[in-house]
Amino acid sequence: MGVLNGMRVVESSAFVAVPLAGMTLAQMGAEVIRFDLPTGGMDATRWPIAPNGQSLFWAGMNKGKRSIAIDVKTPRGREIAQEIICAPGDDAGLFITNLATPGWTDHATLAARRADLVSVTLRGDRHGRPAVDYTVNPAVGFPMATGPEGSTDPVAHALPAWDAIAGGLVVSGLLAAERHRLRHGTGQAVDLTLKDVAAAMLGHLGIIAEHALTGQTRGRAGNSLYGAYGQDFQCADGRRVMVIGLTARQWQNLLKVTGLSEPMAALATALGADFRDEGARWHARHAITAILSPWFAARSVADFAESFDRAGVTWSEFRSFSQAIEEDPDLSPDNPIFSQIDQPGLGRFLVPGTPFGFSGHERETVTPAPLLGQHTEAVLADVARLPDHEIAELFDQGIVTQPGREALRRAS
Amino acid sequence: MGVLNGMRVVESSAFVAVPLAGMTLAQMGAEVIRFDLPTGGMDATRWPIAPNGQSLFWAGMNKGKRSIAIDVKTPRGREIAQEIICAPGDDAGLFITNLATPGWTDHATLAARRADLVSVTLRGDRHGRPAVDYTVNPAVGFPMATGPEGSTDPVAHALPAWDAIAGGLVVSGLLAAERHRLRHGTGQAVDLTLKDVAAAMLGHLGIIAEHALTGQTRGRAGNSLYGAYGQDFQCADGRRVMVIGLTARQWQNLLKVTGLSEPMAALATALGADFRDEGARWHARHAITAILSPWFAARSVADFAESFDRAGVTWSEFRSFSQAIEEDPDLSPDNPIFSQIDQPGLGRFLVPGTPFGFSGHERETVTPAPLLGQHTEAVLADVARLPDHEIAELFDQGIVTQPGREALRRAS
Repeated sequence: MGVLNGMRVVESSAFVAVPLAGMTLAQMGAEVIRFDLPTGGMDATRWPIAPNGQSLFWAGMNKGKRSIAIDVKTPRGREIAQEIICAPGDDAGLFITNLATPGWTDHATLAARRADLVSVTLRGDRHGRPAVDYTVNPAVGFPMATGPEGSTDPVAHALPAWDAIAGGLVVSGLLAAERHRLRHGTGQAVDLTLKDVAAAMLGHLGIIAEHALTGQTRGRAGNSLYGAYGQDFQCADGRRVMVIGLTARQWQNLLKVTGLSEPMAALATALGADFRDEGARWHARHAITAILSPWFAARSVADFAESFDRAGVTWSEFRSFSQAIEEDPDLSPDNPIFSQIDQPGLGRFLVPGTPFGFSGHERETVTPAPLLGQHTEAVLADVARLPDHEIAELFDQGIVTQPGREALRRAS
Repeated sequence: MGVLNGMRVVESSAFVAVPLAGMTLAQMGAEVIRFDLPTGGMDATRWPIAPNGQSLFWAGMNKGKRSIAIDVKTPRGREIAQEIICAPGDDAGLFITNLATPGWTDHATLAARRADLVSVTLRGDRHGRPAVDYTVNPAVGFPMATGPEGSTDPVAHALPAWDAIAGGLVVSGLLAAERHRLRHGTGQAVDLTLKDVAAAMLGHLGIIAEHALTGQTRGRAGNSLYGAYGQDFQCADGRRVMVIGLTARQWQNLLKVTGLSEPMAALATALGADFRDEGARWHARHAITAILSPWFAARSVADFAESFDRAGVTWSEFRSFSQAIEEDPDLSPDNPIFSQIDQPGLGRFLVPGTPFGFSGHERETVTPAPLLGQHTEAVLADVARLPDHEIAELFDQGIVTQPGREALRRAS
């Protein structure tokens, strides 16, 4: 019984942003119904994949949802999908999509069936062009500000960050518009583009203002923390750590625990700088690093980890994904957000629930992703409220499918 | 009159995630009150900065908020902040923070003043250790999966992605818990850590499952799109473009518009591969790139941009921040999410409002960030409901401050 218990959201989607939004809602207790073609959506086989070829990506992005497989290329299939989206209920009539199709799943068409519908539609860009995380990121400039100082090669991020950020906004926009509907009775269309999410962020971070006022923007700075002090260091055991001196306290903690206050003060004097000023640390970062580097090079992580934690230093180790999964207790069943569960068709592995803790709600058991079409019959019955004979007809005509349904029927 | 009009949220914060969350709410029409020390918070001088030294970061992250400057190191200052957080109102009693302090701004202490308080608290990690985007990212593995194939150096992202993702979750968690309060009358504490946000994402993206089932995880792949086809290409004019063949349609579009279907078919035959399978494109990506590279190297972007757009190819150019700001109409007043506004003390530049379009609400004029303490007197009067003489006393004692207040009083 999560915080959103009772809410029903229908999702027509593929890839990251909107599926992640739907899953975020599902993991907070909402009933989220995703519909796909009987052959699967565009992300049905998205990598990473299991040894048996099944998509681990799809399993990851659709946890806790109900899945209905409908051939929405047929008129009847489309009508059923619309019935499900617009089904009655005060806490229903909520739709999220990145696949809005004019005349079918656009807001106006759906609102003709349910006037108080709230829909959130994510598109590529405001011109109607396709755009994905991999194209938006280069367009707004981050890859040219990533990687070693002096390099000229752009470096794309590995995390689909814009998708994940947009996914959070899809949730926020839906909840905001539903909040308004509850007070005023009116639904609305909420529109968002991936490109605008990135464009707005450039402004929020001060990058547009910097360009306007100084004619410049930041360039590549390796793994340095921009505008203050933060750096990666190689240790004696071959491990690499990241150490932060962003706030005054972080900076002081770092000097204290390494015992390097004196040479650092001498450096400041030599440069005529005051390292209490974060900008002074940024300008002097190479010299500061030259003082700190030998300290780390002479020590293994185990030599300083405990004292760093005790002193409240803000630091971490660089790890590969595999190292992180094998070494970090936060990526283990020790962390209550994770459960070891059986994912049908794939096996048993560690699966995250919501990262939220709601004091008013028990943490729910993590629900695996459905098989494609696993809830087709149930959703047709309890949401679309179709009579049994009509459901049977839809199965017979192949307009809807459900894995193992024939076997189920024979057994019953 | 935005979609969240009437809602009041109080924010105690610094840096990216929670300030961004508050601003997202403010740009949807909520009244967001941020309180800081009279000398400013930890991010008061965060880079980027203007030529006059003022923080463009602070201006970027606090647009549309009300700012009150209170010395919360004094008992009276703390009490006033608590009064503001817990002030009456059905749509108030909402608090977001990444600076929760036991015995003062923790949920239990505040809930003693207002039982139905909804608070969202973002922390570093579940162990109480400090963590920031710059340390969480290395810990979960992304920098070791970023950058050129074959390299061993970790590459940190330039976008504070985890902070931005967490900021969206702070908004979502707040709206979800407020929705529950409206139905059931009960408030609650919502907790979240930056580390858990990243840990959960590793699972959502299928990376934990991949490791569990195959013993492996992805490594560095340069600017290639993981698991399908997508690549950057150098063009004759020195520009670099990103081109995507993730879906079957994107892949077909790319072949059609470049006229390279035949050599690509020959390559597939030679490799015994079927490029309709996205995984086959991933495995053969270097060979595919070898066929496409000369095509791009022989052309300037202007030679193919129009035909790419007409054919619906998913592509973009790599740009520096400056190039993006100077060249892209989506980063200009042509884009309705942006306005040229005067930011007090800084000057006139392009500022983004919310990337959302709500069909039920006019797009609001973008409101600049306040000066630190700009709304101190007003918030003390209309939220804390303090009488005039008490407000005067607080100013006299230096417990609260407001820029130019003496001048204002003399003028009135």
